[in-house]
Amino acid sequence: MNEETRLRILQKGAEIVHRKGFNHTGIKDILKAAQVPKGSFYYYFESKEDFGLELVEFFARTLGECAGYVLSDQLLSPMQRILRHVDLIIGTAEANGFAKGCPIGNLSQEMGDLSEAFRLKLEGVTARYIERVAAVIEEGQRMGEIRADLDPGHAGRFIVEALQGASIHMKLAKGPEPLETCREMIRLFLQP
Amino acid sequence: MNEETRLRILQKGAEIVHRKGFNHTGIKDILKAAQVPKGSFYYYFESKEDFGLELVEFFARTLGECAGYVLSDQLLSPMQRILRHVDLIIGTAEANGFAKGCPIGNLSQEMGDLSEAFRLKLEGVTARYIERVAAVIEEGQRMGEIRADLDPGHAGRFIVEALQGASIHMKLAKGPEPLETCREMIRLFLQP
Repeated sequence: MNEETRLRILQKGAEIVHRKGFNHTGIKDILKAAQVPKGSFYYYFESKEDFGLELVEFFARTLGECAGYVLSDQLLSPMQRILRHVDLIIGTAEANGFAKGCPIGNLSQEMGDLSEAFRLKLEGVTARYIERVAAVIEEGQRMGEIRADLDPGHAGRFIVEALQGASIHMKLAKGPEPLETCREMIRLFLQP
Repeated sequence: MNEETRLRILQKGAEIVHRKGFNHTGIKDILKAAQVPKGSFYYYFESKEDFGLELVEFFARTLGECAGYVLSDQLLSPMQRILRHVDLIIGTAEANGFAKGCPIGNLSQEMGDLSEAFRLKLEGVTARYIERVAAVIEEGQRMGEIRADLDPGHAGRFIVEALQGASIHMKLAKGPEPLETCREMIRLFLQP
């Protein structure tokens, strides 16, 4: 097995699935984009679902390295980390022409009811995301920068939900306004 | 044209699209569920997209009559109206086995980038929803029941986004917890 080819299929597949959705994406389209011979898909992945599950991890890793890394940036205060995280999401959205949205939110919406394997994988990835935000909220509460009456896990989930919803509204608006509004509301929600 | 048949196609189509998504739903499946002869779809709808656009209005009307009507219930205070609205969403979610989610959010996510006609239709329906919530927030602010420093339109959008995000998380959790948490966070967000 050629690991480089496998990664190229995941990268090209991620681009297409992010834009068109998982069910709407044909294996042939992915192989064509990855310039891999037709029919060799099952050499690299057991099934389309198996490919999809690896894609979820691929998306989660990429997001963690892009918009997510700032959540651990100790040079910023907890509130700054959360707002900067939203800024990075807005920057990515702009680079994508305000299309695509959150790949994890998208696949959760599309596949949550259709595949138990997808549901479990996406639930795990989403829980990790919420935990990271919750840890920042808790730190902010200890410093008095974030209101103390919020349950960090609940508030973290709420922020992730709002950001995934705003990423959907961004696709409708084709502009930054929904995410910018969301950023400001998150600030007002968190401040003491 | 038989109006009753047309409505039955929309109703059955709504059920299937709500569960499987628009692109993943075949016209044949809808006609079979609606017990309409194969091939007669184009007698009732110009195209699959035309059917989809009518479906958006159908969903919006149904939601307005179900979970949405309470937003105008003058027997409840503004805050009570918003929280009761979330309760109704939770009730519907439970009746659906914590599957499906918000049909407008789902179609916005799926179709926002793929069809300009869908995008415009969904943007209009979403804007109407946000305006209804914003009007309740404004009323609550006048009564001192909701914090005064929120822009009603922005806060209304934020709440709709969070609810659509929570409806996605509900599909992962297969339980009421994400929507219940969202309800509590909305209350804390709005209270003065």
